[in-house]
Amino acid sequence: MGEPAETIDGWYCYHDFRSIDWTSWKRVPADERHSILAEFISMVEEWADNENRAEGSYALYSIIGQKADIMFMLLRPTMKELEQIEKAFNKTRLAEYTIPAYSYVSVVELGKYMFRGEGDPLEDPSIRERVFPILPKWEHVCFYPMYKKREGNDNWYSLPAKERGQLMYSHGMIGRKYAGHVKQIITGSTGFDDWEWGVTLFAHDVLQFKKLIYEMRFDEVSARFSEFGPFYIGNVLKKDEIEVYFQV
Amino acid sequence: MGEPAETIDGWYCYHDFRSIDWTSWKRVPADERHSILAEFISMVEEWADNENRAEGSYALYSIIGQKADIMFMLLRPTMKELEQIEKAFNKTRLAEYTIPAYSYVSVVELGKYMFRGEGDPLEDPSIRERVFPILPKWEHVCFYPMYKKREGNDNWYSLPAKERGQLMYSHGMIGRKYAGHVKQIITGSTGFDDWEWGVTLFAHDVLQFKKLIYEMRFDEVSARFSEFGPFYIGNVLKKDEIEVYFQV
Amino acid sequence: MGEPAETIDGWYCYHDFRSIDWTSWKRVPADERHSILAEFISMVEEWADNENRAEGSYALYSIIGQKADIMFMLLRPTMKELEQIEKAFNKTRLAEYTIPAYSYVSVVELGKYMFRGEGDPLEDPSIRERVFPILPKWEHVCFYPMYKKREGNDNWYSLPAKERGQLMYSHGMIGRKYAGHVKQIITGSTGFDDWEWGVTLFAHDVLQFKKLIYEMRFDEVSARFSEFGPFYIGNVLKKDEIEVYFQV
Amino acid sequence: MGEPAETIDGWYCYHDFRSIDWTSWKRVPADERHSILAEFISMVEEWADNENRAEGSYALYSIIGQKADIMFMLLRPTMKELEQIEKAFNKTRLAEYTIPAYSYVSVVELGKYMFRGEGDPLEDPSIRERVFPILPKWEHVCFYPMYKKREGNDNWYSLPAKERGQLMYSHGMIGRKYAGHVKQIITGSTGFDDWEWGVTLFAHDVLQFKKLIYEMRFDEVSARFSEFGPFYIGNVLKKDEIEVYFQV
Amino acid sequence: MGEPAETIDGWYCYHDFRSIDWTSWKRVPADERHSILAEFISMVEEWADNENRAEGSYALYSIIGQKADIMFMLLRPTMKELEQIEKAFNKTRLAEYTIPAYSYVSVVELGKYMFRGEGDPLEDPSIRERVFPILPKWEHVCFYPMYKKREGNDNWYSLPAKERGQLMYSHGMIGRKYAGHVKQIITGSTGFDDWEWGVTLFAHDVLQFKKLIYEMRFDEVSARFSEFGPFYIGNVLKKDEIEVYFQV
Repeated sequence: MGEPAETIDGWYCYHDFRSIDWTSWKRVPADERHSILAEFISMVEEWADNENRAEGSYALYSIIGQKADIMFMLLRPTMKELEQIEKAFNKTRLAEYTIPAYSYVSVVELGKYMFRGEGDPLEDPSIRERVFPILPKWEHVCFYPMYKKREGNDNWYSLPAKERGQLMYSHGMIGRKYAGHVKQIITGSTGFDDWEWGVTLFAHDVLQFKKLIYEMRFDEVSARFSEFGPFYIGNVLKKDEIEVYFQV
Repeated sequence: MGEPAETIDGWYCYHDFRSIDWTSWKRVPADERHSILAEFISMVEEWADNENRAEGSYALYSIIGQKADIMFMLLRPTMKELEQIEKAFNKTRLAEYTIPAYSYVSVVELGKYMFRGEGDPLEDPSIRERVFPILPKWEHVCFYPMYKKREGNDNWYSLPAKERGQLMYSHGMIGRKYAGHVKQIITGSTGFDDWEWGVTLFAHDVLQFKKLIYEMRFDEVSARFSEFGPFYIGNVLKKDEIEVYFQV
Repeated sequence: MGEPAETIDGWYCYHDFRSIDWTSWKRVPADERHSILAEFISMVEEWADNENRAEGSYALYSIIGQKADIMFMLLRPTMKELEQIEKAFNKTRLAEYTIPAYSYVSVVELGKYMFRGEGDPLEDPSIRERVFPILPKWEHVCFYPMYKKREGNDNWYSLPAKERGQLMYSHGMIGRKYAGHVKQIITGSTGFDDWEWGVTLFAHDVLQFKKLIYEMRFDEVSARFSEFGPFYIGNVLKKDEIEVYFQV
Repeated sequence: MGEPAETIDGWYCYHDFRSIDWTSWKRVPADERHSILAEFISMVEEWADNENRAEGSYALYSIIGQKADIMFMLLRPTMKELEQIEKAFNKTRLAEYTIPAYSYVSVVELGKYMFRGEGDPLEDPSIRERVFPILPKWEHVCFYPMYKKREGNDNWYSLPAKERGQLMYSHGMIGRKYAGHVKQIITGSTGFDDWEWGVTLFAHDVLQFKKLIYEMRFDEVSARFSEFGPFYIGNVLKKDEIEVYFQV
Repeated sequence: MGEPAETIDGWYCYHDFRSIDWTSWKRVPADERHSILAEFISMVEEWADNENRAEGSYALYSIIGQKADIMFMLLRPTMKELEQIEKAFNKTRLAEYTIPAYSYVSVVELGKYMFRGEGDPLEDPSIRERVFPILPKWEHVCFYPMYKKREGNDNWYSLPAKERGQLMYSHGMIGRKYAGHVKQIITGSTGFDDWEWGVTLFAHDVLQFKKLIYEMRFDEVSARFSEFGPFYIGNVLKKDEIEVYFQV
């Protein structure tokens, strides 16, 4: 029996990707479109207010390519709130003109080895800001889910805990080289969704995603042990750009 | 030829996941929606009555994310009854506003090694309550199907029975640590559906699912021999919350 | 070059699984529904007449779960007749309310080693009743396609013929233990459909499917060499139950 | 660096599989259906005229099972002509009642080792009739795509050219045993479509497909190195059977 | 930790494949179709103007087979511009008659070992014309995504940098043999899309794609380390052929 890595878990996380049904949307009269968008913008404002109260966080991005058109990512203290947000969006009028494209359910996660203090790590401010993070509104986002392989000799879960720790440390060192360029949010999804982790990256320069992930791929954790799901790449969609985005 | 583990089989089990077609649902006039929900609620009441008579059991949950919106899980003495329940739901008016998302057919199963008595295990009360269980209505549910690998050196079905037994025992010990926190229902589906087992977990604290499954993944049974299907995560949907859930 | 097992081939076989579009079906006026069902029932009667003349056979089952609602299985002397039956169903009015869910094309097959006589095995009555079988109308059906693996050291088609024969013999012994409980029809589909064999099982007690397949999985033929496709499980749908089944 | 097998390439090849939307088709008034079919039949006549001029070839078959209803296969000297044929069909009125089910783009291919002469093999008449073939209109067709594996020790493309040649020779010997019973057209699709080859077989007796492919599966080329895609099986659809086929 | 190959990255790249909904398109009155095409053609003219200003490049091809009908490929200095182009197309009236079929997001990439000079490679003219390329409008296009394997002993990312360099050099030599016949654009997509590279080939003679890719498959880089996605093959669609292409 291996020794599981312990985790510090923070806010629950919901990624929701939607495609827009442009054909139907164009059929809507202009003033109705305006009122539909006003309803959606007011929902985004609620998300922003929640974030201002530090009771959660959100991000809104437009996705490039046919996989989806928009992505929203929400952090909240409970799974119940995530469900309510999803349901609230589904009941908006804008939702009638969107098609579900992908979603991901997870929780912000930190390896316990990141905490060298004593007592409850959730009372340590430097830990708190990592597991209850305010999502950056940087220009670009990259999201992908992943799991660790359990195949033949490449079985992550059969490695001794110490070896896993060393591998993760060296893996983390690569990420650290990109500090200030790429902001990384790791969310755990074992038991919550089909992969084991969601990785959400934010950058001002989109090329930094490629450089970081490509460099990591040569590292043993990725090279031998990681399997990656679909990749989504997007540009930030600010609240005051929504009207223009949906203009037809 | 290996020696198959013998099982004690109880009630047949049907999981049904549905997405709601919110756009069509919103088009329905309010009083018609009310009457449609009344029909559905009365079906749920029948399920509850059946459970009160200990002739079966049920659970009703809302699912988080785009994979589905609601899940109902039914236990009954015969496969015929499961078919009738599915068909009855399909003929309700509410079904017209739902889209099939996933389903699973199985039977509550217990390894025979759990029974150390003599005679028919199905007459032992402690066995009976495990294979004819009343499903908890705890706050959260987690469902996933799985099978045991038969790949190269990681072939579960080629292991000696004794080794399988030892591995399952140690695996079970992990589950036992979560007693009171996570309630687990194992249903066998060999010959009934595409994977070999369905795992349905109930918890008051949703994080317990992640902790349990993550810990188990380091255990040899999971690490070397288990392959997992899609994961569904949900919040309990009580009978008197249905109206609010469907309010648009 | 290995030595292929020779087969004795009988009637061609067509499995057709359909989901019912209940929403559209409910929109049909009651008397029209009645006339649509009459047309379908008369087709089933033709199938029964054909079977009475021993010119083929048929089975009609309702399927549990979202994969399909009904399944019909037809045996005929030629592939041309199978196509005609499929096309005839597609042209019925009932077909307008069904959605294709899965189908399988194959031919009833017997290993030649089953025949120890001389001359043409198709003139041996005990062979004839196995390759031109009248399908039982037992309470439950189980269908799944499968192939034999060709992966690394687990390559069925690279085994010496003698070893394959011994393995299949021991595999068959398991099936024999279920004689009277499970009736098994093996159909070969190499060159006809995506897997290599279709397995159709009939039982009075649905649990026998699980016991048989689970037991076989520990046998080397399944454990090392078999890969299984989707599983379909159903309850018999008798001709005089069709009206009730479709009642809305 | 291995030594690639050189190929002799002939006509370009397009397989197009379509399902018929019977429900919509039945809604069309009888005389309009007649005129729609006349348009399609006249297109088939053009294909036949082209074949009579030896400027290409065609085949038209009805497919058994839910994968598709009809298949047409066209051979032409250029890729441009294939696109034009596809587009011309898409613009017919009949196309409005069909649903794309599968297609395959390739080119008739012969291993260069088949040519022992000197100079341009495309000037050798026995080569010409193999790479510019007139497709038989035999009763049955079987189509499947395939590729050669590149996995671990079973890596076709890492074998020495001589070993590949010997394996292919022995593989071809099996095909030769079926001369007169099965006519085989091999088309290469590396760079053109998702697999590496398309295999189209024609037979008077449909059972010959199963016998041939099953026998080949024990040969090392198939057993160790071949991976197969979906299989399509059909009955010839003669020009004067089209009206009956589409009659509703 | 391996040493990642450094790359020189140029213009961002968007491939967009669409199927045409011919049935709906035929329902549009002729003059409206004309005006819809005029709008699309004027968008293509903008793409051409942008290319003339050397601020990006484009290609427009018709695809053979059911996977898609048309493909456009755009190169631009920023990811934001790619999103705008995609969104602009989605808002055209023509888009209402197209169905998204596939898309790919990447960036033109060159291995740094291609640059033997000093200073910023992006100031070297011979590098600039390779990473900011004007796409040829040759008669045929071939597109496919790919990744390098990380399986057991065939793990590209675990190879020493020097060995990777030698393998890529010998791989590149094959491509060089096709100079003048096949023009190759490699775009990197790690972090941007599901595979790691997109390969876009242009040729006057479509058979050159097959010869090149087939020859490369025997090379160790492909044979042992490459996995390929779907292949798309097309004919150039010139601006003045658009009207004819869409004529119904």
